[in-house]
Amino acid sequence: MKKYSTSLFLADIGHTNAKLWRNGKVETVSLRNFKPENIKQTFYFISVNKSYQSRFEKLKNWINLENFSNSQTTYETLGVDRKIAIHDLENGIIVDMGSAITIDIVKSQKHLGGYILLGKESLMLSFKDKIPHLNFGNSLCDEVLPNKTEDALTCGFYHPLVSLIRELESRYKVEVIFTGGDSTDMKNFFPKAIFNKNLLFHNMIKIVETNF
Amino acid sequence: MKKYSTSLFLADIGHTNAKLWRNGKVETVSLRNFKPENIKQTFYFISVNKSYQSRFEKLKNWINLENFSNSQTTYETLGVDRKIAIHDLENGIIVDMGSAITIDIVKSQKHLGGYILLGKESLMLSFKDKIPHLNFGNSLCDEVLPNKTEDALTCGFYHPLVSLIRELESRYKVEVIFTGGDSTDMKNFFPKAIFNKNLLFHNMIKIVETNF
Repeated sequence: MKKYSTSLFLADIGHTNAKLWRNGKVETVSLRNFKPENIKQTFYFISVNKSYQSRFEKLKNWINLENFSNSQTTYETLGVDRKIAIHDLENGIIVDMGSAITIDIVKSQKHLGGYILLGKESLMLSFKDKIPHLNFGNSLCDEVLPNKTEDALTCGFYHPLVSLIRELESRYKVEVIFTGGDSTDMKNFFPKAIFNKNLLFHNMIKIVETNF
Repeated sequence: MKKYSTSLFLADIGHTNAKLWRNGKVETVSLRNFKPENIKQTFYFISVNKSYQSRFEKLKNWINLENFSNSQTTYETLGVDRKIAIHDLENGIIVDMGSAITIDIVKSQKHLGGYILLGKESLMLSFKDKIPHLNFGNSLCDEVLPNKTEDALTCGFYHPLVSLIRELESRYKVEVIFTGGDSTDMKNFFPKAIFNKNLLFHNMIKIVETNF
């Protein structure tokens, strides 16, 4: 990824937080504290959060990159974050592990489909709510069968996901690319995969470079 | 499963409901309406719900089967429902799909370990809470890659689980036995598996027959 000599400001707005990129520095801001009206710089953004739509439409310095992805898909209502994640991708399985987990498969530049799963933190909260005495383990999960409740919960999150990704990898014979906050946890299971936590920002930069 | 000429009353108490077996008739009662003190018959029961413990201890007609399972395991704090599910099992993968999903692997009568995952309904509620505009599809999921959001969510629940179970099946070379309310959904994916929605009650009957 080349370094930009000029200033570049990007934003990726989710359902809980806005991730801001300011010349390579990334900051995560809770939506409670995110006021795009107070920002004067030109920001290129994507937003999966519909509630901001009318606010952004009034702000001339906020430029929506939603329609600039060159992804080819027949998937109805593919989220803009997923469209941007597969921008310019020839072949690959993109796994974006945030508050939700999305998996998208691209072969010969064509998006073949994908999945949406619950992220680890939401899963933990949901268990906490349902069965308060069950606790997730802090340790990462390895390949062996869990033999205590904490590991049964932690690996109950990782192992089904790992099995599915490995199955997709062997079926479509393409490499796996991980992004999103929780993705580093997967290095144990996929030592040969690509890990790029700023994949979306890097693709947004490509789009800005090409189109603006 | 033989038919009992004498009356037999069983209860399987969870975190949301109590499932009652009265001579082969099964009734699910919300815990709000479940008052063991008002029941006069002799009931053999298991309970994963710790909040009932002291109440049952005072009731002589409620007989706890917790310690009667012959399962051999090194798993710390294995839930009583899982102990009963693997009672007398020589080889098999038990998948119990209720408000939580448990997976337990038994080989040569030894419990090797297992998993705890979130059940489908809890997963749907958690998504609803987090991202209200996302809806799960009503249709069952088949083997193909999802190509719309509803299917991406529904298959995002089924496919990772199916992948994991198939991986375990091929690693341990034992048959898969499904139980629990949501398990019939898996018939598509595992046409050769055993489906027994009353597995726990059937094993409780075996225990009562042998011990009382």
